[in-house]
Amino acid sequence: MIRLERLAVVGVGLIGGSFALALRAAGLARRVVGAGRSPGNLELALRRGVIDAVAPDAAQAAQGADLVIVATPVAQVPEVFAGIAPVLGAHAVVTDAGSTKQDVVAAARAALGAKLSQFVPAHPIAGAEHSGAAAATADLFRGRRVVLTPLAETSPQALAQVEQAWEACGARLFRMAPRDHDAVFAAVSHLPHLLAYALVHDLAERSNAAQLFGYAASGFRDFTRIASSHPEMWRDICVANREALLAELDRYGARLAALRPMIERGDAAALERVFAAARAARERWLKGDFEP
Amino acid sequence: MIRLERLAVVGVGLIGGSFALALRAAGLARRVVGAGRSPGNLELALRRGVIDAVAPDAAQAAQGADLVIVATPVAQVPEVFAGIAPVLGAHAVVTDAGSTKQDVVAAARAALGAKLSQFVPAHPIAGAEHSGAAAATADLFRGRRVVLTPLAETSPQALAQVEQAWEACGARLFRMAPRDHDAVFAAVSHLPHLLAYALVHDLAERSNAAQLFGYAASGFRDFTRIASSHPEMWRDICVANREALLAELDRYGARLAALRPMIERGDAAALERVFAAARAARERWLKGDFEP
Repeated sequence: MIRLERLAVVGVGLIGGSFALALRAAGLARRVVGAGRSPGNLELALRRGVIDAVAPDAAQAAQGADLVIVATPVAQVPEVFAGIAPVLGAHAVVTDAGSTKQDVVAAARAALGAKLSQFVPAHPIAGAEHSGAAAATADLFRGRRVVLTPLAETSPQALAQVEQAWEACGARLFRMAPRDHDAVFAAVSHLPHLLAYALVHDLAERSNAAQLFGYAASGFRDFTRIASSHPEMWRDICVANREALLAELDRYGARLAALRPMIERGDAAALERVFAAARAARERWLKGDFEP
Repeated sequence: MIRLERLAVVGVGLIGGSFALALRAAGLARRVVGAGRSPGNLELALRRGVIDAVAPDAAQAAQGADLVIVATPVAQVPEVFAGIAPVLGAHAVVTDAGSTKQDVVAAARAALGAKLSQFVPAHPIAGAEHSGAAAATADLFRGRRVVLTPLAETSPQALAQVEQAWEACGARLFRMAPRDHDAVFAAVSHLPHLLAYALVHDLAERSNAAQLFGYAASGFRDFTRIASSHPEMWRDICVANREALLAELDRYGARLAALRPMIERGDAAALERVFAAARAARERWLKGDFEP
C-alpha cells in the first residue's frame, strides 16, 4: 500500500481538498502541502486541516513530494506542469483531476519530457455545484467513479500508486482512452452544463425575468442545478473539449430540430413515443442497468 | 368557509388525489367521488382513502357535486367538460389543474355554455416525476404556488370558493391572464421538460448508450429528473401550448447558436460571462429574490 510522506495538492478546492482529506482519513498521507491562487482559500484549507502547510507556488509544493495532484481548472494545468516538471523527484508520481483528458495529456507531453512516465491522467466524477476548500469532505469519492486514462508511456508503478490512492478514497476505478473519455463526457456532462447555463442566462436577460423566475418550480430547480457550477471551471472545460462539445451541441440541435415539427403539427403520438422512450431509459439507468 | 358535501375528482392522479386528501384533511370535503380511465388506479385511490366511491364516468361523478376538479392530462379536458356540462347544478363550481390554460379555457367556452361562469381555471405548480393515486399526499400543495386565470365571465362566488379550497390545501395563490400563464410556463417548465426528454432520448438511441449512461453522474441525474415525468401528460402540454413552446424553442435554439462560436473560437472570457451571469441569477432565485 502506498504511504505518502508528502502529498502536494495544487488547487485545494472541492476535489483536491477532498482527495487530501480522504487520504489523510485512510492514514496514507503524513504531510499535505497545498498551493493555489487564492490565499483566502488556502488559509481556510489550513484551518480546516485539509492541508498542513501552504507553499508559495506549485513547484515548491511539489518539491520532495511523493504524489502531486493537480486539481485546478484545466486551463491552468499547462503552467502548473511546466512549473513542477524541473523539481519532480525520480520516484514522484503526478496525477490530475481534470474533467477533460486530451488537453491535460497534451500539456503533460509538452511539459514533463522524460518524466511523462510518472504522470497518470485521472478524472474523478464527483462534481458538485459547491466549490473551494470549504466544500471538501473525506467521503466525497466514496462509491464514485474515477476514470484513469493512462498513456502508453505511463509507468505501471505510477499507475498502481494512483489506483491505490483512489481506492483508499473509496472510489471505483475505470479506464478509458483520453479521446473516448472526452467524447463520453461531452455527451453526459459538458453538454448538459452548457444547456443549463444557456437556459438560465436566457431567462435572466429578459425584461420579465423576475416574473419568470417567480413561477419556476422544483423541476426547474433540478434541471438548472448544474448552472450553479463554477463558471471558470466550466469555461475551461468547454474550451478544452470544444471539438467533442461542438459535435454534441450540433447533434442536440438536430434532435431539437426533429422534435419541432412534431410539436408544430401536434403529433401527440410521436411526442409520446420520444418521451416514453426517454423515461424508460432513465428508469433503467436509475435501476443501475447500465454499466460502462 | 366552503364545506363540500360532495367533491368530484376527475382524474385521481397525483394532483387530483392530493387535492382530495388535502381538503379531507382540512375537514372540508365530506364525500369524495372519483372518476378516471384506469380501474386499477381508482381501486388504489379507494383503498388509500383518497376517494370514497368510484363513478363510472365524469358525468356521474359530477352529478350533485358542489365542486368538480378536472385533473386529467389536458387533452382529455374537452371531453370531460362536454360530459359534465349537462349535469352541473346551478351552484356547482368547476375547476381544473391543467398545466396549460388557453386550451382549457377554450374547451370550457366550447362546452359549458351558460355555465361558463361556474368555471375557475387553475394550475397548481406542484409537479413531480411520480404520478397516480399512489403518489398523492395531503401536503403536496403546502407552500406551493397555484395560479388562477379567471375569465371576465367567472363568477366572484365560484372564484372565492376555489380560492378557499386551495388556501385550505396550504397553497399560495396568484392570478394571471391565460395567455401570460402559458407564455411564462412555456419558458420555465415546458421547454425544460422538452430539453430533458430530448437529451435522454438522444443518448438512449446511440449504439454506446450503456457506456454513456454508465458514466452519467449526479449532474445528469438532476438535469434529467423531469425526463421521468408522465409522457402522456407532457405530450398533451406540448401540443396544447405549442405556439408558446415553439417560440421558446426557437429562442433557445438561437441562444445555443450564439454560444457555438464562443466555444469554437475558444472565447473563454465570453463563456465565463454567460456562465457567471447564469449562476448569479440562479443564486438570487434560490435566495428568493424573485417573486412573480
